[in-house]
Amino acid sequence: MVSTEDLDYPQIILQYSNGFLVSKVMFTACELGVFDLLLESGEPLSSDAIAARLGTSTTGMERLLDACVGLKLLAADLTQEGALYRNTEISNTYLTKSSPKSQYHIMMYYSNTVYLCWHYLADAVREGRNQYERAFGVSSKDVFGAMYRSEEEMLKFMAGQNSVWSICGRDVLAAFDLSPFRQICDLGGGGGALARECVSLYPNSTVTIYDLPKVVQMAKEQFIPPEERRIAFHEGDFFNDSIPEAELYILSKILHDWDDDKCRQLLAKVHKSCKPGGGVLLVESLLNEDKSGPLETQLYSMNMLVQTEGKERTAAAYSKLLEAGGFREVQVKRTGKLYDAVLGRK
Amino acid sequence: MVSTEDLDYPQIILQYSNGFLVSKVMFTACELGVFDLLLESGEPLSSDAIAARLGTSTTGMERLLDACVGLKLLAADLTQEGALYRNTEISNTYLTKSSPKSQYHIMMYYSNTVYLCWHYLADAVREGRNQYERAFGVSSKDVFGAMYRSEEEMLKFMAGQNSVWSICGRDVLAAFDLSPFRQICDLGGGGGALARECVSLYPNSTVTIYDLPKVVQMAKEQFIPPEERRIAFHEGDFFNDSIPEAELYILSKILHDWDDDKCRQLLAKVHKSCKPGGGVLLVESLLNEDKSGPLETQLYSMNMLVQTEGKERTAAAYSKLLEAGGFREVQVKRTGKLYDAVLGRK
Repeated sequence: MVSTEDLDYPQIILQYSNGFLVSKVMFTACELGVFDLLLESGEPLSSDAIAARLGTSTTGMERLLDACVGLKLLAADLTQEGALYRNTEISNTYLTKSSPKSQYHIMMYYSNTVYLCWHYLADAVREGRNQYERAFGVSSKDVFGAMYRSEEEMLKFMAGQNSVWSICGRDVLAAFDLSPFRQICDLGGGGGALARECVSLYPNSTVTIYDLPKVVQMAKEQFIPPEERRIAFHEGDFFNDSIPEAELYILSKILHDWDDDKCRQLLAKVHKSCKPGGGVLLVESLLNEDKSGPLETQLYSMNMLVQTEGKERTAAAYSKLLEAGGFREVQVKRTGKLYDAVLGRK
Repeated sequence: MVSTEDLDYPQIILQYSNGFLVSKVMFTACELGVFDLLLESGEPLSSDAIAARLGTSTTGMERLLDACVGLKLLAADLTQEGALYRNTEISNTYLTKSSPKSQYHIMMYYSNTVYLCWHYLADAVREGRNQYERAFGVSSKDVFGAMYRSEEEMLKFMAGQNSVWSICGRDVLAAFDLSPFRQICDLGGGGGALARECVSLYPNSTVTIYDLPKVVQMAKEQFIPPEERRIAFHEGDFFNDSIPEAELYILSKILHDWDDDKCRQLLAKVHKSCKPGGGVLLVESLLNEDKSGPLETQLYSMNMLVQTEGKERTAAAYSKLLEAGGFREVQVKRTGKLYDAVLGRK
């Protein structure tokens, strides 16, 4: 990866330096609707036409489009009248709002919320705590109070999480055969994309989404159609309110929000409610035991510092937490994608 | 670059998304002094020791170090007492403050100034103008007034530009044989790293750094030692004040700050002051004529939108501007690094 050439000219350092420019170019093209317009138009368009249709400056739009060409998110055909731009296959699939695999919403969350929190990364490392106060002027003490500081923020977060499951949901649910578990409770299930994947993959299952009352309301209004009869809801705060009985609990990206004490406390509570023979499925991004990576997970663990009270962990660390909570026969499956699966049994 | 595999799982989209996380991890490790400490210590250190020496939280520091391992900026040796961290060769060379090729200062400028301006990229594209007002609450109208809004900002910018020339300066100055030109004027020469490269590469040359009075003061105080007798200074604003006679003018990253009108105006003025047989050397990052790249230059052109009144240009565009200013025999040399060279003659 690092060649001796890099010691003469630091290609990799420049690439890392430019990382935020790359992110923001992609996020901004999404936000301004470039990929949606080019999908709808059905034909390549000039930068002037795109700028006019999207109500932006021409000088800014031309450069944005050219940078997207450099990133292979757009292609430019040179004609006598100038360049005409069109989507590449990857942007049609992942960057348009209407695609089933759209990552649009997670991009918007990254661009408008996470990016600004990360401006204060040095402070987060100094202080060892999240940066909502510096970034948004809201107290850092109640993490989800800060994350859901407005309906708009909550909706952006829920939609963002749903986009993640559109590309990773099936893999984490298929990592183990969950068909023996019919009565499933998705703790902190949010916008419900994982629950929908679950009832689709396991036709005999029903899933109860357990989340804070305002999250459940939003999920019902925005994300889960009432005709989805195999998905139910339960309003509550899983640290302070009771957890209903179930055969399987899914904790997807929950434990990574909290410190070890709170994780053990929550798992013990889940264990108590769990039917005999039942289990718990953790869906998390797993760190290698030897600190070598994966890079994405190391970065996400820093994000947990910047945004939550938790961290990403190794498979061994999750196994320990599960065992402390009373679970046994812990099995780990890596999916090769961002999120992995850990199953514990009661 | 984009394989069919990417249509099942968008590796490249995730990489672009995480770009800003990567940038900030590297910037923050620099800012907190991780690489400097590990260079000085001369032996691998634990994350607890590093956190204690640098006055940070242990939980934040461990994750920062691990992310740097994932980026190959650090290496971790696993011992019985836990992981011990050390610099890789590339971080010793480019990320420590004391290295002659240090990129530390440009990282700090990127991390603390450019990163925040880029939070408003969508606004910049909509409006077609720089974002100092949104990012820092200063008027966008006088670009260098905004950039040099405090002594600290000016110093950060000047030091940052100097780091760029420590890796790219020699190549742009060696692109053409400049030895026939003895009396050289570096317009907007700032911290003077390029001027120093020039007198070192061309032993018969003298260079006058022409810049705003406060920049010249700072250059004398901070960057150019008084024993450097082949470097002189001239205080002025090259748009409003006179430009002294010289055999060669260097305009390094100057034209990219301004629109075509201002570039032509400046070049005509330079042409007038230039001795017969003299010339002008433009040092800029050149765009390909066919809009295909280079990606870095496309990104920098977006940065010119976010921070200045200018843009990056193709070799053809610079040739046109030079010819409009009265220069002839325009020659272009690409260096293969970030900055290229264009020479015009009077």
